[in-house]
Amino acid sequence: MERKYVIGLDYGTLSGRAIIADCKDGTVLASAVKEYDHGVMSEYLPDGTELTGTGWALQNPKDYIDVLKYIIPEAVAQSGVSSKDIIGIGLDFTSCTMLPVDENNVPLCLLVKNVSRPHAWVKLWKHHGAQKQADEINELLKKRGEIDNIQFGGKISSELLLPKILQIVEEDPELYDEAASFLEVGDWLTQILTNGRKRSGNLAGYKAMWTPETGYPSKDFLLQLSPKLENLTEDKLGDDITLAGQPVGYLTEDWAKELGLCAGIPIATAVIDSHAGMPGSGVSKSDQMMMVLGTSSVMLALSENGYSKNGVVSGIKGAILPKKYALESGLAAVGDMLGWFVDNCVSWEYKQMADQQGMDLHSWLTRKAEKLSPGGHGLLALDWWNGNKTPYVDGRLSGVLVGCTLLTKPEEIYRALIESTAFGTKKIMQLFAESGVKIHTIIASGGIAEKNSLLMQIYADVLNCEIHISGTEQTAALGAAIYASVAAGKDLGGYETIQEAVANMNHLKDIVYKPNPPMVEKYVELYQMYCNLVEMFNPQKNTTMITLSQLH
Amino acid sequence: MERKYVIGLDYGTLSGRAIIADCKDGTVLASAVKEYDHGVMSEYLPDGTELTGTGWALQNPKDYIDVLKYIIPEAVAQSGVSSKDIIGIGLDFTSCTMLPVDENNVPLCLLVKNVSRPHAWVKLWKHHGAQKQADEINELLKKRGEIDNIQFGGKISSELLLPKILQIVEEDPELYDEAASFLEVGDWLTQILTNGRKRSGNLAGYKAMWTPETGYPSKDFLLQLSPKLENLTEDKLGDDITLAGQPVGYLTEDWAKELGLCAGIPIATAVIDSHAGMPGSGVSKSDQMMMVLGTSSVMLALSENGYSKNGVVSGIKGAILPKKYALESGLAAVGDMLGWFVDNCVSWEYKQMADQQGMDLHSWLTRKAEKLSPGGHGLLALDWWNGNKTPYVDGRLSGVLVGCTLLTKPEEIYRALIESTAFGTKKIMQLFAESGVKIHTIIASGGIAEKNSLLMQIYADVLNCEIHISGTEQTAALGAAIYASVAAGKDLGGYETIQEAVANMNHLKDIVYKPNPPMVEKYVELYQMYCNLVEMFNPQKNTTMITLSQLH
Repeated sequence: MERKYVIGLDYGTLSGRAIIADCKDGTVLASAVKEYDHGVMSEYLPDGTELTGTGWALQNPKDYIDVLKYIIPEAVAQSGVSSKDIIGIGLDFTSCTMLPVDENNVPLCLLVKNVSRPHAWVKLWKHHGAQKQADEINELLKKRGEIDNIQFGGKISSELLLPKILQIVEEDPELYDEAASFLEVGDWLTQILTNGRKRSGNLAGYKAMWTPETGYPSKDFLLQLSPKLENLTEDKLGDDITLAGQPVGYLTEDWAKELGLCAGIPIATAVIDSHAGMPGSGVSKSDQMMMVLGTSSVMLALSENGYSKNGVVSGIKGAILPKKYALESGLAAVGDMLGWFVDNCVSWEYKQMADQQGMDLHSWLTRKAEKLSPGGHGLLALDWWNGNKTPYVDGRLSGVLVGCTLLTKPEEIYRALIESTAFGTKKIMQLFAESGVKIHTIIASGGIAEKNSLLMQIYADVLNCEIHISGTEQTAALGAAIYASVAAGKDLGGYETIQEAVANMNHLKDIVYKPNPPMVEKYVELYQMYCNLVEMFNPQKNTTMITLSQLH
Repeated sequence: MERKYVIGLDYGTLSGRAIIADCKDGTVLASAVKEYDHGVMSEYLPDGTELTGTGWALQNPKDYIDVLKYIIPEAVAQSGVSSKDIIGIGLDFTSCTMLPVDENNVPLCLLVKNVSRPHAWVKLWKHHGAQKQADEINELLKKRGEIDNIQFGGKISSELLLPKILQIVEEDPELYDEAASFLEVGDWLTQILTNGRKRSGNLAGYKAMWTPETGYPSKDFLLQLSPKLENLTEDKLGDDITLAGQPVGYLTEDWAKELGLCAGIPIATAVIDSHAGMPGSGVSKSDQMMMVLGTSSVMLALSENGYSKNGVVSGIKGAILPKKYALESGLAAVGDMLGWFVDNCVSWEYKQMADQQGMDLHSWLTRKAEKLSPGGHGLLALDWWNGNKTPYVDGRLSGVLVGCTLLTKPEEIYRALIESTAFGTKKIMQLFAESGVKIHTIIASGGIAEKNSLLMQIYADVLNCEIHISGTEQTAALGAAIYASVAAGKDLGGYETIQEAVANMNHLKDIVYKPNPPMVEKYVELYQMYCNLVEMFNPQKNTTMITLSQLH
């Protein structure tokens, strides 16, 4: 049989990437990337309008189209593959990144009359202007006794779709009326490419409080939030919803021409970028866990049961793999925290010594920290430099360092910070275990997993679990390609199931980090102390951190 | 009347200093200093014998004599004063710095047969080898229900005289037998100079568990500690005890010749170096507090009542000023902690920027920290980088930093550390207030008080109290000189009372740090949060820090 290929599109916070992957073995033949011209807008709109208030993180939807028109032809050209052998496209996107559109799916911000209206633009996932609205929603959920519904995770984040829509209702009600629809950008792109109206169950299930059984939040609930919202679902959302790995439609003639592809190839339903990383890093079995280690971390594991509390969210069944829930959590800061430490809190003497050895400061600290024993520095940290996701789901919480003495050295703090993220990860795995998910293998990916062997070994020892490294650095893009191969199906040269596609298109690196029993044992006591510290700063009982966050 | 002069001797940890002060107005005419040739011995004795085990901090008594023979003639020569106008000598010494001597007051370590015996040498105040013995004593005090006796402060420190003697009993019992006497070095020096046997009530009251009413610990108690100790008091201590400002005797002919002074001038009773700083910095009234701010801090305030708990010790009545108790506490790290931070945890970019401005890092951080508002950095620290003295009296406790985010900057941590020491100081002042001591004025001295105006203003705002700066940097030496003038008495050209001497011989600088009401208010809430954090890490309830200290 001839070789067939799929395109995986991975839209991140600052750029979009396309890869061309071989369906047979997942080999990535080419990769093209382009940054968004307007990046993230937090102070001004493109016409110079100033954004007043805080928390803005907007994007320009034109950037996504410009990226699309560049990266696909570029990757195809690089790969040397004939367009007739490309059998499908998959796409992942940051989420909830949403926009209001008119009845023709034209973004409202691209209509001249709206260019100065902040709420007409794309709200990026990390737009935090809707905290007040999230608080209102949580208040109402509590009042109705619905806060513990499994799709909510015990608390609604301001990053979800509904707070973002409610912010528009409250701050620009006319724009709300004008919008024919509110869309995740991932859905907007697949709708455009297919001239369809289907939406992704992955996006809706994790970010729009939708479940296959109950749909979106009830009329009754929405009415209580705001009279305007009563008919939100039928008027402006739409519930033609497709699960992961299924096609949402087929590439239109116009777009095929524009992108140099064949019309009619299937477009897979969009998924959240981190979720595409799950098949993309090779996880398709229920005793495996995906761990992406970058500026922050993401952990995903399959589960038979839904479980949403303490910052662990299971979304809906089938959102990532058919018939399974996927438990998701992660740490709000890993690489970001270590980077903060290195940039701010390491002495110039160390910098000089590292320079003399031709090493960067991370490597220099790592070399020194490797010689320390677990906890031998006498330090204990809470890894909450960017707030806490699990167990407290509170961005106002902050980092803690205990155990400083006049003899404490930077490499000791560095190691304690690494250990704190390992303890935070263990805490999440214990919550996963509570819902019945026992992990035997971790498959890690991301910059830190590739580069920081000290951190990886500490994780293996703290988690008492083997850690494998994913074969590709582009796990999300490969995941999108895997979904494309399944949307294309066996007949076209793809696969029937996601599991089958993962098994063929994914390969682990040879490196395995194995737990070292004496270290494992030493970390047991330290982890217990970490848990005590987590409990000491439980924001329900101790308002210190919240008060501190308000002093800024 | 002719001008008369006194000599103040100030023996510190690494050097001894002599000043010549004018009795009339306290003007310091000359100052001479000499370091101890053998410094602090923590690894080897002078003959090369290795010190096994931990916590050794020994000194060579010959160094004190060498220093004496240099600094007095040198200071007198510099001053141009005639020896006949020098009417007395006062002396302060670190404490409890103790040594065993034979019946002729010859240090046992200077006898050839003993040079290799560690316990024959001087144990410096910070010798920490007797922790086990301190624990035994505390255990016994508890068993006997005597732990709360006011001269003990709720817990015996390993730095006191009795633990140090008990260490000798347990580790070199023959040497214990051989010793005719155990002496504070301060007493040893005044005994030598006067060929007398009097001891200082200041030293005995604060460091040897002695009170005027009950004397040293009872026979019964000492017997329970060790059979050898039963007759410790009468055999090896002696209770001819003199209070501060009184003469212990008069300079011998031999020493007068050796030092170029007149024989027969009075020698004032020795006092603890930090205590000499009290009259030396100008404190002689009951609403004033002395605060010495250096690597650590010392606070002293006069009181009508004894009060010894939570790390505050009042010693005995009359130890510093007649008929008054003096409450003492302080922070185990101030300058040391800020120095640690600057040396270890400030980025090389800051170092570069400071260098470009021709500033040191402390000044650079101070300039940036001055622009911050109280607590505006969102950080809260526990200042326990060198353990905690008040309220927990536990060297195993350690520093804490809460509130770190990815935006936290070094100057913010620097300011939070300064604030934490101010809060720790306020906590001590509140304990002073509990015993009835209300402070209206603080008189500060020490390197930090002279140099760090940011810290001083923060202290004024946190403590809500005016802070004056002592007129001299050599407060301990001036205090010793003040005691000398009182020991000499009015007839010789000195003073009748310490208060009178302080009033005449002391002058404050013009600088006054005044509380700034809006800042005072902001710090009230932060201080409450600090107290909560202190309570969270109460070692009676939370063993985290103690466990961490044992991991080292």
